Amino acid sequence: MNNRLVTFLPAGVKVEVEPGTDLLTAAGKANIEIKAPCGGDGTCGKCAVRIKSGNVKARRDSHLATRIAEKGFNLACQTLVQDEDLVVEIPKTSSMSKHQVLGENASVGAGVSDALSNYLLHVWQLKELLLEQQKSPLNGYPLNPLCRRVRLTLPVANLQDNRDDLNRLTMALKKEIKCTDIHVPLSIIQKLGEILRVDQFKVTVLLSEVSGKVEIIAVEPGHGHQPLYGIAVDIGTTTVVAYLLDLEKGRVIDTAGTHNRQARFGDDVISRIVYAVEEPDGLKTVHQSIIGTINTLIMDLLVKQRHIKETDIRVMMTAGNTTMAHLFLGINPKFIRLEPYIPTANFYPVVKAQELGLRVNPDALVFSYASVASYVGGDIVSGTLFTGMGNEDAPISLLIDIGTNGEMVLGAGDWLVTCSCSAGPAFEGSGILFGMRAMHGAIERMQIDPQTYEVAYTTINNGKAIGICGSGLIDCLAKLKSTGIIDRAGKFQTSLPTERMRIGETGPEFVLVWREDTDINRDIVICEADVKNLLRAKGAVFAGIRTLLNVVGFELESIENIYVAGGFGNYLNIPDAIAIGLLPDIPVEKYKYVGNTSAKGACMALLSQEAWQEANNLAGKLTYIELSVGNLFMDEFISSLFIPHTDLTLFPNVGL
Amino acid sequence: MNNRLVTFLPAGVKVEVEPGTDLLTAAGKANIEIKAPCGGDGTCGKCAVRIKSGNVKARRDSHLATRIAEKGFNLACQTLVQDEDLVVEIPKTSSMSKHQVLGENASVGAGVSDALSNYLLHVWQLKELLLEQQKSPLNGYPLNPLCRRVRLTLPVANLQDNRDDLNRLTMALKKEIKCTDIHVPLSIIQKLGEILRVDQFKVTVLLSEVSGKVEIIAVEPGHGHQPLYGIAVDIGTTTVVAYLLDLEKGRVIDTAGTHNRQARFGDDVISRIVYAVEEPDGLKTVHQSIIGTINTLIMDLLVKQRHIKETDIRVMMTAGNTTMAHLFLGINPKFIRLEPYIPTANFYPVVKAQELGLRVNPDALVFSYASVASYVGGDIVSGTLFTGMGNEDAPISLLIDIGTNGEMVLGAGDWLVTCSCSAGPAFEGSGILFGMRAMHGAIERMQIDPQTYEVAYTTINNGKAIGICGSGLIDCLAKLKSTGIIDRAGKFQTSLPTERMRIGETGPEFVLVWREDTDINRDIVICEADVKNLLRAKGAVFAGIRTLLNVVGFELESIENIYVAGGFGNYLNIPDAIAIGLLPDIPVEKYKYVGNTSAKGACMALLSQEAWQEANNLAGKLTYIELSVGNLFMDEFISSLFIPHTDLTLFPNVGL
Ligand code: FES
Ligand SMILES: [Mg+2]
Ligand SMILES: [Mg+2]
Repeated sequence: MNNRLVTFLPAGVKVEVEPGTDLLTAAGKANIEIKAPCGGDGTCGKCAVRIKSGNVKARRDSHLATRIAEKGFNLACQTLVQDEDLVVEIPKTSSMSKHQVLGENASVGAGVSDALSNYLLHVWQLKELLLEQQKSPLNGYPLNPLCRRVRLTLPVANLQDNRDDLNRLTMALKKEIKCTDIHVPLSIIQKLGEILRVDQFKVTVLLSEVSGKVEIIAVEPGHGHQPLYGIAVDIGTTTVVAYLLDLEKGRVIDTAGTHNRQARFGDDVISRIVYAVEEPDGLKTVHQSIIGTINTLIMDLLVKQRHIKETDIRVMMTAGNTTMAHLFLGINPKFIRLEPYIPTANFYPVVKAQELGLRVNPDALVFSYASVASYVGGDIVSGTLFTGMGNEDAPISLLIDIGTNGEMVLGAGDWLVTCSCSAGPAFEGSGILFGMRAMHGAIERMQIDPQTYEVAYTTINNGKAIGICGSGLIDCLAKLKSTGIIDRAGKFQTSLPTERMRIGETGPEFVLVWREDTDINRDIVICEADVKNLLRAKGAVFAGIRTLLNVVGFELESIENIYVAGGFGNYLNIPDAIAIGLLPDIPVEKYKYVGNTSAKGACMALLSQEAWQEANNLAGKLTYIELSVGNLFMDEFISSLFIPHTDLTLFPNVGL
Repeated sequence: MNNRLVTFLPAGVKVEVEPGTDLLTAAGKANIEIKAPCGGDGTCGKCAVRIKSGNVKARRDSHLATRIAEKGFNLACQTLVQDEDLVVEIPKTSSMSKHQVLGENASVGAGVSDALSNYLLHVWQLKELLLEQQKSPLNGYPLNPLCRRVRLTLPVANLQDNRDDLNRLTMALKKEIKCTDIHVPLSIIQKLGEILRVDQFKVTVLLSEVSGKVEIIAVEPGHGHQPLYGIAVDIGTTTVVAYLLDLEKGRVIDTAGTHNRQARFGDDVISRIVYAVEEPDGLKTVHQSIIGTINTLIMDLLVKQRHIKETDIRVMMTAGNTTMAHLFLGINPKFIRLEPYIPTANFYPVVKAQELGLRVNPDALVFSYASVASYVGGDIVSGTLFTGMGNEDAPISLLIDIGTNGEMVLGAGDWLVTCSCSAGPAFEGSGILFGMRAMHGAIERMQIDPQTYEVAYTTINNGKAIGICGSGLIDCLAKLKSTGIIDRAGKFQTSLPTERMRIGETGPEFVLVWREDTDINRDIVICEADVKNLLRAKGAVFAGIRTLLNVVGFELESIENIYVAGGFGNYLNIPDAIAIGLLPDIPVEKYKYVGNTSAKGACMALLSQEAWQEANNLAGKLTYIELSVGNLFMDEFISSLFIPHTDLTLFPNVGL
């Protein structure tokens, strides 16, 4: 094999690949993540890279490839290594690095042109910008972690009391805790004899206890004070977020987030499933990709930065949509995408970290939140737990989680209905020319001067702008409409007296940031296709809400609380979200921006057995509504493709 | 590393080893088993080999090595490979190959000198030669195997009935069988979706069910008729015996036995423990050695000969002494041999075959019989189950298992006491100059003419004699005594008028077979040291019986049944065993020769859940008597070192 060396700039990472390998795959091998929302089909154009040296060949010709080539770029997914070594530069716009975790140290200010700053301060009313609710990680549940430490002093063995070591241990344990069943894995029994005798039959047992069933995780000599950590992970299709918890103190020590490395197999769950099912070793590759993502989070972001030992992490809790849960556990996801959309499992077995290759203590137990159906997963169950919607006295509430899919739950106490509305990942930046996730340099808030059409904006970390994230897109859409740049159907008014309005390659577009103010050396624009995508996404969410209400026979007015979850950025501008018809027109006071409820619910379950039991109850209690059955949803969807809606009586407070 | 090539004859097996390696270790690496009862200490002399070419070095000088060298042999354990390749011949007497399983096709006749055959027919009364009892493998229990097949036709999934696959399966299963708990391993869930759909939601589930807890072993498409096999294994210190069972028909298909390859670490459990604890990687080596032994049995003797697929073996049951159970599962046995003699575990977890590397279906479940204490193991529990001694209406009975250790159980129904008397492996041929296990060419019956001192004998398989096995040794000792060749204390009467009586290297000895009638080109003799060893062994067994009776306050006469188990050969000569004082002097009718009860009880447990439950009950019910506490046993032992005993009133029917 005559492998070639590919060097990726700016990181300088080198990797050897066979001639004929495409650069997207080569980057993947080098653990460098390049954006590829189309899954490497050569249709999204997000994977543009620049060849600094060496010759390459295009997989095939395409209009998109030619356009990109004119600008001096190549599509990584379509560009094949030939017989020379290569140096390849990955521009910031194509790179997925420097990911910004939702909820962390963003600030407002820089990147805003001086001329507009006064105006901004005047217009942005803090009351309409919902900050993420901050709560204790226990969220009302008692601290009673899934993994705990029991210190035992066993009677010392002698010729009279000559019970075997295992019996001695389990009998002492049964005195300490009520349980019907104690399971001790063989690997622990194998070394038990020595361990009991290191410190005269004094031992510390680490165990998990769920409904009276005890699983021993470790038996260690003496009555030590080693720390006891757990990790809660939200496995999002796009973003993976981990919380490191001190289980005994019930505290979050740190959080970290990164993009899901599976992104190179496509942006949505369907492309992941297709890859897993159709490629040779596809399932294994996609499975290992999410395990690798989580390991990176654990090692680079938590273990190394906090100087803790990975072996002190004894338990993990994951929550993710049904496809993510399947792929995480290596379960074939094939039938999730085929009618009648059956997941292989909704309740998942508890496994050991070493079975999955997770870089925590090899004997750590790994729990997975139960799913409800193929398109309502453990992340939504987790979110429902977090909101308390299933509690006995809960008022009628609505949880909307706008991630890659767009799921929602409506109900109160005993009854809870749920659906997934296939909103698509537009609010995560996918399918939007300059869309991006909530990362460094993303525009997260925006204002357009109704007279001059000047644009003011703030970016995450105050970096020079490189794109727009979810909250920026909501602002943008609302402002485009309120200033008359687009009409109710999303059509651009091309005759406006501003050079920002122009005809681009794909049709009318509006310049949000001029090239010189960006960090990507290109004008950041929004085009008509972007607006159409956003309308479809917001329309699907609103149609979902309407359908759920219809199924249970309630009106919008009955809803007491609306919990909005998802990765929009640090803030959610509720009036703007209402103005575009994404969220229902009810008083802003009823809204709560709850952030990543999937991760937060996972923390709760780790910290409290009671929470974990309730989570499993909820998974059984949630009634799934399949939107593809009947015409109800489709009719609602079509009516929702306008700003704010075809039926304006639904939005009495939105001025036109 | 400049390795040297060692070729072992007669097999011609070659192996590369480093200079400095001893030949016993080299043979082990080549999977050739050489006898080494002393564990390679250079003291037993059983590992003699002949160097055909190449130069070697002795580890150290010893009297034994010199004596062996004079005859042209070297001790394999003391002989080191030097800088040349070697050719080494292993004489039959040192080899452990061609092992004969207890209970298989032996015949009587050849090897007996013509002159004595009439006499033999006259003297051997068949009534005193107990044949092994033959029973159905179920032994009275209902056929209800630990692993069974359930054929299910699940409702086909559709948009209305869109339960997940796992739920669909477990709900259908719960309709079929009563159970509280169903555990499906992740490996099965991973592929479940496809499997259900191969034959339209028709599946065959293989499962094990123990006290309402179900463990799924496999889920396979369709309603096939593949066979369903199980393997029951008696893991003896010296011999390992396996039974291949058709679980659905409740039938034994085949049996096979071989020596325990651990023999190269020493003959008794203590030397195995010492090796496991003190050598680098010792536990792993000893563990893999027993796994290798069992794999050989399964593959060479069962799977290949019966043309069955190893993957059709779905469950295994093992029974062995406590040390064997520890080593089989890789559990550190260290504290078994240290006062107060505590095993790490008496009840063992069920594991998967792949965890241990057993060559059956990787998902097959492996059960291990529970032990009672460090020196009363699962083999005895299994034997107790087989005898039915724990049944409600059972009369007072005694089970004596004379293997490498010598354990016994006394009791009836509710009460059962048990002890281990450290008899040592003399009746398995160890520590006896020409002693050997019940294999091809072993003398198993013997008669000595009281006038001429001529010897008549039969051998296993009618092969030319190469040594004496357990039943032959009992006969031999009885006849030496009855013909006056030895006295009650085992002292040889050297003045007898026969050339068979002579003074050998170690003192007085009696020639049993002249060199020209053997297959080893040496006279087969029995010497005074042999007799002393046999006296110690038989004395320990009898002292154990007396001690147990004493502890519970019963007399010999109260015993209704004596079950004798162990590897003596095909027959057990009860009057001779009584005559030497090994077994109590009660009517022959009360004796039952039950053979390998450990293996038979393991079969019962595989074939019947009820039997397995009772086995676990028994393990809890057996009361262990530690003979090293107090003087009772030692006093009895010393009185038992005579033939038949110091107190002749105990043997009223034995003529002197
Ligand atoms: S065009 Fe290359 S990944 Fe989409
Ligand atoms: Mg999410
Ligand atoms: Mg035995």
